Amino acid sequence: MAEEAAVRAQAETVRRLKQDKADADEIAKEVAKLLEMKAQLGTDEGKQKFVLKTPKGTRDFGPKEMAIRERAFKAIISCFKRHGAEVIDTPVFELKETLTGKYGEDSKLIYDLKDQGGELLSLRYDLTVPFARYLAMNKITNIKRYHIAKVYRRDNPAMTRGRYREFYQCDFDIAGQFDPMIPDAECLKIVHEILSDLQLGDFVIKVNDRRILDGMFAVCGVPDSKFRTICSSVDKLDKVPWEEVRSEMVGEKGLSPEAADRIGEYVQLHGGLDLIEQLLQDPKLSQNKVAKEGLGDMKLLFEYLTLFGITGKISFDLSLARGLDYYTGVIFEAVLLQQENERGEEPVSVGSVAGGGRYDGLVGMFDPKGRKVPCVGVSIGIERIFSILEQRLEASEEKIRTTETQVLVASAQKKLLEERLKLISELWDAGIKAEMLYKKNPKLLNQLQYCEETGIPLVAIVGEQELKDGVIKLRIVATREEVNVRRESLVEEIRIRTSQC
Amino acid sequence: MAEEAAVRAQAETVRRLKQDKADADEIAKEVAKLLEMKAQLGTDEGKQKFVLKTPKGTRDFGPKEMAIRERAFKAIISCFKRHGAEVIDTPVFELKETLTGKYGEDSKLIYDLKDQGGELLSLRYDLTVPFARYLAMNKITNIKRYHIAKVYRRDNPAMTRGRYREFYQCDFDIAGQFDPMIPDAECLKIVHEILSDLQLGDFVIKVNDRRILDGMFAVCGVPDSKFRTICSSVDKLDKVPWEEVRSEMVGEKGLSPEAADRIGEYVQLHGGLDLIEQLLQDPKLSQNKVAKEGLGDMKLLFEYLTLFGITGKISFDLSLARGLDYYTGVIFEAVLLQQENERGEEPVSVGSVAGGGRYDGLVGMFDPKGRKVPCVGVSIGIERIFSILEQRLEASEEKIRTTETQVLVASAQKKLLEERLKLISELWDAGIKAEMLYKKNPKLLNQLQYCEETGIPLVAIVGEQELKDGVIKLRIVATREEVNVRRESLVEEIRIRTSQC
Repeated sequence: MAEEAAVRAQAETVRRLKQDKADADEIAKEVAKLLEMKAQLGTDEGKQKFVLKTPKGTRDFGPKEMAIRERAFKAIISCFKRHGAEVIDTPVFELKETLTGKYGEDSKLIYDLKDQGGELLSLRYDLTVPFARYLAMNKITNIKRYHIAKVYRRDNPAMTRGRYREFYQCDFDIAGQFDPMIPDAECLKIVHEILSDLQLGDFVIKVNDRRILDGMFAVCGVPDSKFRTICSSVDKLDKVPWEEVRSEMVGEKGLSPEAADRIGEYVQLHGGLDLIEQLLQDPKLSQNKVAKEGLGDMKLLFEYLTLFGITGKISFDLSLARGLDYYTGVIFEAVLLQQENERGEEPVSVGSVAGGGRYDGLVGMFDPKGRKVPCVGVSIGIERIFSILEQRLEASEEKIRTTETQVLVASAQKKLLEERLKLISELWDAGIKAEMLYKKNPKLLNQLQYCEETGIPLVAIVGEQELKDGVIKLRIVATREEVNVRRESLVEEIRIRTSQC
Repeated sequence: MAEEAAVRAQAETVRRLKQDKADADEIAKEVAKLLEMKAQLGTDEGKQKFVLKTPKGTRDFGPKEMAIRERAFKAIISCFKRHGAEVIDTPVFELKETLTGKYGEDSKLIYDLKDQGGELLSLRYDLTVPFARYLAMNKITNIKRYHIAKVYRRDNPAMTRGRYREFYQCDFDIAGQFDPMIPDAECLKIVHEILSDLQLGDFVIKVNDRRILDGMFAVCGVPDSKFRTICSSVDKLDKVPWEEVRSEMVGEKGLSPEAADRIGEYVQLHGGLDLIEQLLQDPKLSQNKVAKEGLGDMKLLFEYLTLFGITGKISFDLSLARGLDYYTGVIFEAVLLQQENERGEEPVSVGSVAGGGRYDGLVGMFDPKGRKVPCVGVSIGIERIFSILEQRLEASEEKIRTTETQVLVASAQKKLLEERLKLISELWDAGIKAEMLYKKNPKLLNQLQYCEETGIPLVAIVGEQELKDGVIKLRIVATREEVNVRRESLVEEIRIRTSQC
């Protein structure tokens, strides 16, 4: 009896809650309607105050910024193509669950879309997880691809230093079961080529291996369960001094002071082949299986990098940890060094411009049968590179053209609009890049000024006498030279005169 | 007394509704917590079943699709550059209020982001509103720009016909105070050039003017307040027959049958200059001020299009209305015509591939002082074009290359990995596009097969004897010809042999 009553009470509660929910929905709808009416009223009155801005942490690219961006992309894409990469693209959002459990502590920075009915979606956080999803979904076990696209992180923006909430990543990845360290070495070669090509100044590429880190944690006495969180602490070493990192490990994360101190000794080590050899002899580390594997592969990597002739810029650095959860082997990060250091001190790093590593388990997380596809890849952090190129361009006072127009179709007298339209149409149809002013009767001076401002090298001037003679007057803006060209030769003449531009 | 009771009852209702709302929120929170816990459990067990798909209405672009996409983009971008356009880019999301009140009935299709604290954001719905926001924000009164980017609409996808929820728009717009119809005519010329260049088959560009429509509505007896909604009905004429549109006007929208019938007579008219002249003589329409303005400008537009030599593909069509709220003058839409029509019937349109028009009021909606910047622009609907190009490529069985690799660095014997690495590094540094298999000892047959599959035209074969002789064996894949090339001439030889590719 009591049970029956309880069940009935429960059913009543459920019924009431459902009703409440329906009521609340009704209210929400009414409120939405009112707000919409208000917005429409606002529109009709033309009075509403817009906040005229882009969302926090984002920016527009005007024509000048785009010209710089295209330059940087060109260098990066031509490097990726030089290494035989195909290109893919994926949607800007993914199913929310696709991103779940991939980014560790950074997951809180993911942008979710509002639930408007249907699937739950999130904006992509990087290009690596969508790539892994793409491979698993299409059962691809073997590909070398690049992908250049925007990713989204609800991070604290620092826009002057090139840290945005919407930013480009330029990713190159090699997926497939291959002999050890050959694709890994190519990724480092690519970073080296791109940073050299862009002439961003001196740089160093730090290299480490998650297996060496894990082995190091083990021999230092870090419990297995704390590996990832202690790894996150080590990752902060490029921004904060060891003392702070140590106190986070001991204070917040409950690591024993002895273990922390042992880690402290390792993470200050950096060097080349000699350091690898030294650690392979390290009495503790050499006894640890994963560390030994990692060190063996690191040695092989350095041999390949020697053949590529780039070890001068590579530093095996035990303090490099990388934040993301999905790395399983080699990890690396390229940092620019302070350009002019007048006091002769050791160069200070001004920031990471590329990073990457091996992630052999990520594709398996998406495959229904857990089939793994080993992957290694690199991501170029282009926003910081843009910032540097922009600053440099501003300092150099180089005038950058934002169009490719070869010729302005102009007129010397009034009432020649029709003739200008006819001529420009001929030029467009012949593939010539041509502009005209959108005025019926523009002044010649204004037309010439437009060329000066925008860098158009030639002016094709239509005049009454020239029309009678079957010629067009071609003016070379830089020299102010003018020549009459027969109309049928005009296209060819423009091509010749702009082929050096 | 009765009044007081009513007020009290109302207050009680409000209190109860508020409580209900709070309860419902509490439930929603609890559910969210449980779902999160469930998700975390799933992660820890590594067991959760991923739905391996892209979000509804979106797709990945694999290397082949990208190759087709790049071809189409190339044609479009080179046309935009030929017309002297600069390029800009804006963020993928805007403040929600930036998009409010711009799209009329379509606003319900906007993707909102979840409120995660901070600003309320929405994904852009087109590139026109962000462009207007950009102009107002930067006080730009004069620009010709293109913008190619993805936009987002929560519409019903029909992917086989190229209708997606995430899709590219390729926009070209001219902003500024200019003499009438010159920029408008250029927009139509651009559509004509691009559709001709892409060889998509026969097409027609329908043209109309919002002022002609408004004047027509007025003389047909449509009340002012119903202009926009009746315009929406007319917009459906390309998909549904007049009878259905008429019954929507009369039934749903309360228009008088007489007014609807008068509209019905006008909207079946289409033609060229002759139709414009006829309507300028129309006893009713010629008395209407805005209609007369619109017809006068339409006449001027046709004169300019005649000079451009493209009136053959232009149809002045009184049934063209365009859905969006922001148009104020000329509107147009390009449709592809059914390719092969064996029964000799009138060609049937298979779908819109470009559209646009004049929107002189939009920038003013963003300017704090309401300053207007007249604009006209065109948007190329690239997804439908992709679909057509993809189908055509599939039918043609043309093999499309997805990389640009010039040479594969191969070896004829074992133990030559180091030599391959050294050689490929030299080639990369000289700017040659080169690949190698990531195997220590690949079989020569496998290496040659890789070239056949991926279309690599040359193989640089490292062999022991050749190393001693200081030469590399260069194999031309297509002819199976092999030549020994001195190592120092290899780069030059590869350049020459691939310059025709």
